[in-house]
Formats: sequence, C-alpha cells, structure tokens
Amino acid sequence: MAVVSVQQALSGSVAPGKEVTVRGWVRTRRDSKAGLSFVNVSDGSCFAPIQVVAPADLANYEDEVKRLTAGCAVIATGTLVPSQGQGQGFELQATAIEVSGWVDDPETYPIQPKAHSLEFLREVAHLRPRTNLFGAVTRIRHCLAQAVHRFFHEQGFYWISTPIITTSDAEGAGQMFRVSTLDMANLPRTGKGEVDFSKDFFGKETFLTVSGQLNVEAYCLALSKVYTFGPTFRAENSHTTRHLAEFWMIEPEIAFADLNDDANLAEAFLKYLFKAVLEERGDDMAFIAERVQKDAITRLQAFIDAPFERIDYTEAVSLLQNSGHKFDYPVEWGLDLQTEHERWLTEVHVGRPVVVMNYPEQIKAFYMRLNDDGRTVAAMDVLAPGIGEIIGGSQREERLDVLDRRMAQFGLDPAHYQWYRDFRRYGTVPHAGFGLGFERLVVYTCGLANIRDAIPYPRAPGLATF
Amino acid sequence: MAVVSVQQALSGSVAPGKEVTVRGWVRTRRDSKAGLSFVNVSDGSCFAPIQVVAPADLANYEDEVKRLTAGCAVIATGTLVPSQGQGQGFELQATAIEVSGWVDDPETYPIQPKAHSLEFLREVAHLRPRTNLFGAVTRIRHCLAQAVHRFFHEQGFYWISTPIITTSDAEGAGQMFRVSTLDMANLPRTGKGEVDFSKDFFGKETFLTVSGQLNVEAYCLALSKVYTFGPTFRAENSHTTRHLAEFWMIEPEIAFADLNDDANLAEAFLKYLFKAVLEERGDDMAFIAERVQKDAITRLQAFIDAPFERIDYTEAVSLLQNSGHKFDYPVEWGLDLQTEHERWLTEVHVGRPVVVMNYPEQIKAFYMRLNDDGRTVAAMDVLAPGIGEIIGGSQREERLDVLDRRMAQFGLDPAHYQWYRDFRRYGTVPHAGFGLGFERLVVYTCGLANIRDAIPYPRAPGLATF
Repeated sequence: MAVVSVQQALSGSVAPGKEVTVRGWVRTRRDSKAGLSFVNVSDGSCFAPIQVVAPADLANYEDEVKRLTAGCAVIATGTLVPSQGQGQGFELQATAIEVSGWVDDPETYPIQPKAHSLEFLREVAHLRPRTNLFGAVTRIRHCLAQAVHRFFHEQGFYWISTPIITTSDAEGAGQMFRVSTLDMANLPRTGKGEVDFSKDFFGKETFLTVSGQLNVEAYCLALSKVYTFGPTFRAENSHTTRHLAEFWMIEPEIAFADLNDDANLAEAFLKYLFKAVLEERGDDMAFIAERVQKDAITRLQAFIDAPFERIDYTEAVSLLQNSGHKFDYPVEWGLDLQTEHERWLTEVHVGRPVVVMNYPEQIKAFYMRLNDDGRTVAAMDVLAPGIGEIIGGSQREERLDVLDRRMAQFGLDPAHYQWYRDFRRYGTVPHAGFGLGFERLVVYTCGLANIRDAIPYPRAPGLATF
Repeated sequence: MAVVSVQQALSGSVAPGKEVTVRGWVRTRRDSKAGLSFVNVSDGSCFAPIQVVAPADLANYEDEVKRLTAGCAVIATGTLVPSQGQGQGFELQATAIEVSGWVDDPETYPIQPKAHSLEFLREVAHLRPRTNLFGAVTRIRHCLAQAVHRFFHEQGFYWISTPIITTSDAEGAGQMFRVSTLDMANLPRTGKGEVDFSKDFFGKETFLTVSGQLNVEAYCLALSKVYTFGPTFRAENSHTTRHLAEFWMIEPEIAFADLNDDANLAEAFLKYLFKAVLEERGDDMAFIAERVQKDAITRLQAFIDAPFERIDYTEAVSLLQNSGHKFDYPVEWGLDLQTEHERWLTEVHVGRPVVVMNYPEQIKAFYMRLNDDGRTVAAMDVLAPGIGEIIGGSQREERLDVLDRRMAQFGLDPAHYQWYRDFRRYGTVPHAGFGLGFERLVVYTCGLANIRDAIPYPRAPGLATF
C-alpha cells in the first residue's frame, strides 16, 4: 500500500483510482443522512485537508468512525477519486480507517474547529500548529527560510554561524542577557567584593549576542560574500507587538562594495523571497488573503514588480517637512525617522519600497562609514508599505583612523575591539552589509499584527514555559 | 568592466581574452628575473587563488606591486588567458593593479604564507578564514548546511526554529547555562533568602537549550515531517577535542514512524550530505585529502556506496564479548557502548556504517519508546568508521501511561512537562527522530582532530573573546 501525503493525494500526482493510505489528524467530521461520514484529515503537508469518505459498512464505523472528533489521529486507506465538492481535486473513498490516537475529553481539547483568539493560542503554543493559521505561518516561514539560504547560495555567498555567546556588544548599546554557570546562591567574589567572573565558565563575563555583524565581517574580509542566519537576543521592549526577546536575524556582508551595492543586494533579496512565497505557498497565501490581510498577495506582487525608490535622508526630511501632514513626532535634520515618517514616505509619497540613505552620523552606529561631508554616514533603511523599516544596513568604516575616532566618540574601548580593528590593518577593503529580522519578514508576509505569532514558540515574560 | 569572482575566472565560464576585474587578497608574490611579478590572489570563492601576471610597465609596479605582501587587498584588471602553469585553467594578464588595503607591519602579520599551528589559529579566529584550511572548512561547512536544508525540503519537511532560551531540560540531565538579566551585584531575594527568579526577565529561571527535540515533537504532531537546525549549548566537557559549549544541532522528527523508518531516514540523509560535498566541493576536498586526511574522499565515497548494517544492541554486546579484542572498558549487557566498542563494530567487524538498535532502557532517555520486552527501548546510534557515533535517535514513547511511568522512574516532575504530555493525550501517533551535531559532521567530513576547528568561532574557556 502506497503511503502518500495529503499534498500528494490532492495535487493529482497520484493516479486516480489508485489505492493509497493517508495519515493525519481529523479536522471535522460530518455524518450524512445517507449513512456515511465525511472526515476531513490534515497532515500539515499543505493547507487543505483531504476529505475521507467513510461508508457505513466499515467494520469500525459505529464504534469508532462516528466517535471521531477534531484532533484524533487516523490512518485511512482507500481509493483516490475526483471530488464532487468545490475546490478539492480528489477525495479518498475509504476501505479502512484505523484510529491511531484519540482525544482525551474532546469537550476540553483546546483546538476546537472554530476561531481562537491569538492570545489564547500563544498560551498553547505546542498545539497551535494544528490550526489553519499556524499551519500556514509555519509553512510560509519555512518557505522564506529556504529561499534565504537558496538566494545566497545561488549568488555565491557562504553561510557563517557567528557566536551566540559573546563578550562583545555589536551595537555599543542594547540590553543583553547574561550567560553564566556561576552558582547564584553563592557567588564567587573578588577581593574588592565584586562578582568574580574569572570563575565563570568562560573565565569572563559573557552575554547572548545582539548581532553577528562584527564577527561576520572578518569572514567577509576573507571569503568576499558571506551571510549569517541565526538567533539573536535583546532583553528589552518585549512587551510590544513589534519586538521579541529571541529572534532570528539575517546579515549578509559583501566585500569591495559600497552603499549602492548594498541597496541593490537588499532589493534583489527581498524580491526573490516574496517571489518564492507566491510561487511555492499559493495555498497558504490564499488563506492569509481571505482571513488575515485582504491585500496580502497583491502587495507582495507589487513589491516584486516595482523598482525601489532611493531617497537621501536629507531630502526625506525636506519632503516630510513640506508634506503638509501633521506628524506626532518632530521632523528635523539630525533626528531619527519615526515609523509614522517612514510609512508616509513609502506609502503616501512614493507608494512602493524606498531606500533612505546617508543618515546623520550622530544617530547611527560607530561602525558605519563616515561620508565625505563629515556629517552623514553611509547608512540605509529599506522601508516598505504596510510595515515601515524592514532592513537596516550600511557601508562599514574600513579606515582604521576614522573608526578609532568614531569609537572614541561613542565611548568604546579600542582594546575591547582589537580583533575588529585588526582586519582594518590587514588588507582592508570597502565593505557593506545589512540586517533584517526574520520574524519581521514573516509578520509582513503573513500580515500578522503581533510578532509573537511569527516564531514557533514566542519568548517573552510569561511565554517561556516550553 | 566585468567584475568576476576567482571561481568564475578559473572555471572557464568567462570567455578567454575577455577583459575582467578580479578582487581579493594576496597570498604570495614572486618576482621573476624577466622583470614581471606573479601575484596569487584569493577571494575565497573557491579553493584556488588566481595567478595575476603583473608586467613591469604597470604605472605602480616599482612603488606598489613589488611591495605587495600576503594579506594585501588588490583589485586587478586585465585579460584572462589560458595558463601555462600546471593545474590552473586561466591566469590574468594585468593591465592595472589597484591596492585597496595594505598590511601594517607585514613582518608581524599573523597569517604568513606558511603552515600555522591550529592552536595558534584558534587565538586569531577572526583571521584564520584567510588560510587554505579554514577557507576550505568554511566552504565545506556551507555546502553541508545547504544540503541539510535542501534534503529536508525535497523530502517535504518543514524547518522549525525551537526555543533557545528555555525552562525545560530536554535530556533530564546535562549542565546548562543560565540566562538572566538580574543584577548579579545586587540579587533580589525571596523572604526565605533564595534568589527571586520571579524578578528575572521571564519571571522564572531560564537556561540555554540543550536540544530542540521536545519542542519540535509538537510540530511533528501537526505537520508530520519537521526538522530543527539551530544552536544548542552544554556547559560541560569543554576541555576535550570532541565537545563544544556552543554547537549547532540537526533534529528531524517524523510522524507515523517507527525506529526502522528513523534508521532509513538517517541513512538517506547522511548519504545525501556526503554526495553533495563530493559533487560541489571537490576542490576543497582534494586539499583535505592532500594535507589533512589521506582517505578523506574515498571514505566518503565508501559511505555513500555501502548499505548501512543494522545490529541489535544485544547482538552487538555478544559480538564484542566474543571478539577476542581486549577493550579498556567493560562490555556487558546493560552498560553503554564506549567509543572503542563502537569503532570496533563499525571499523573492524562490519567495515562500514552500522546502526545499533534497541538499547537497555535504563541507559537511555525517558522519552524513548519502551519495547515489548520491557527491558529495551527503541533507540538507535549510527556509528561510522573513523568517528564512531555520528547520529543518535529513537522512536518516542507515544503512550501517555508508559511515558508517565518512565518520567517517574527518572525522577522528573510531570507538571513541568504538562505540555509534552499534552500531545500524547490529543491524537497521539508513533513518531521518531534523531539528532546529530553539525560540527561533528564537519569534523568527520574534513578529517579534523579538534571540533573547535569545525565552527567559525570556537566557544570555550579562553576562546570567547570575539
């Protein structure tokens, strides 16, 4: 007996009339007056469940089939036949249905065949993949992740897994999580009474990384095109709908490259990802468009079709000041753009993605390359309709003397960054890169309102129980 | 002017006679008596550097070209011509060489064109990707990672990123790193004087994960075929050459599957990976075979060609006891196999990879399925010549009553695992999976002696400076 996935059974890749077995979990059961039952079975291989038609002459029809409820696991064998129903290609005329697992107390099973609040589902994150929405989000997330790796591979990039546990703070700011094996009930102390981190696992104070950028730069200066795709951590802002304490980040870095090359890469990259989603996950995107965000498909298509606009920060400030629009936050050269400003630029002014370039040096990180005007750095933000900033990047300061001045200005200790300074002493080249939060990409693609629904298990106060 | 990678220039994909620009870092420079210089330039896109022939009539020949040393960054423009030298397809007859970055004080530049000790290179992990060995390891590592994602995608698996910060200990053992934002100099205390973790970031005590398995099982029970590929952490054994404190793990999980399905998956998976390396990274593997491990290529080929043997643990113990071989560690039913036993089985007895199955229940984890004999669990280890255990896996205990008994036996609190028990109450099915350490795979593929050389930046006491 050939075992096939629901995706294979529905897609027509199996010859009609063939006897097959499908396995999965019951979504719904409906008993017809004609004395047979229709059992919808999902195995997660695609959005749609398959309709299993169970005739009354099955040996276990009365005892088991008619007791099936949402969540029961079944193994159904029968013949694939073209479906009479709308939308479905094929259904299974069952000759046997074996129940692999029942649902204890169906009345209290958390995943009923009805709409659940997203707040409730976050509390049962281990069961939410059984819902239509989280099945779709999981498959779309997978599709995006695959496309990330495939895009870079096709372009000649190498994947670098940068350290998770680190002693350095890539941003020169940002709340970090401490990593330690010291016995907190009985901390070792130095003679001065301070916590003695020389007794800790690594012999010094260590934290969870906030970014792999500095580390991946070293590999860029040897392999030319590299990228990270790994988890990063921020111990802040975790009560908003836009921030996660634990999230995945993608950070490509290219050598012999300037800010324009960086913007070109960002544009090609995002278009490649959204194209992959529309081509490979049409079923899940149709559900998203129907239930979550009406224009989910058309806005991705528009994203792919339109060239990105590029605007200098200085020009963006003028445009905002002369827009006649009343903003909550002030617009002034030297201040960072707020989400409302970003969204006006991309949604109202241009109507498609915009790359804002060359920001004032005092509002950007120390490693960004100082422009010849001495006032701005070669930084960029990619803004997209419906979300605002989706990518942040920069050309890096490859001149050691300028970097040292910038570090001093930010109050950073050069000794702590000796290794980062090193590859600027040894064959330095112009290089650039960007970072984007993977969950932000999932949020945007799936039209989600809360970033906690874009990761398999959200980490936040009260949500770290798994 | 077309900019091409060294890989493109050498591969013949650019028409000979075409004017191109290559960019990279100098490996060596040799000045001929005929008044020209040969500069080998690497950009990391492939193993080989390209030979750039610099004639004396270049404007900067005396001032710059003749001062180039290892590590200098150059941009060379010229014509691609078939090479006179052995092995090389093409060389670049330069019409211009621009120096992008010099090396400060070439005498003390750590990466000289000579062999370096691996110990020394671990101390300069930010520069070691510029060596032949770490360039090769990085590209092979990338190739393996891509093949991991591609294999699972082609087989209909979905990638799940399981939590890094967690409250649960998947193994019921293992030293974990604590993650905290509490001020260690001034810890909050409960009335009883204990550290008050309710004041910590997540409102409870949290750790770095040792495995994503338990979490990914929940997704398996909804999407049927899933896998993790992410970092895991162990705060132990970090002083050996076989363990890392921070390493990447791959954990597939399949529903409606038993231990045989699991072993089949492991075999197909490993063969797919090694095939990808031999097909895609022949250049790097040739270097590995020449300099690191003589049989590096032939043993991967043998791995692909031969079917894996399967032996029951009980039979393996008999074989070892009757082998006539004197082992350092005792061999007795009920004891775990040591590396020397594993290597005898796979190298001496069978001469190819072996799957040892059905281990005594008391030496394996609580989640492994109890066999009908009541003495063994459906666990497997895949052993390979030259390394021993490379994969460990099991069928999971899907029966809640048996799981609860096993948890009690291991002294685990069922309340703490309520969510893990849950999906055994709701449509449980036989399921199985395995785990393999990604760096162990890199060690095996590249013939490395120390696992710290298999990850871009090793994390260990004294090696967490980046």
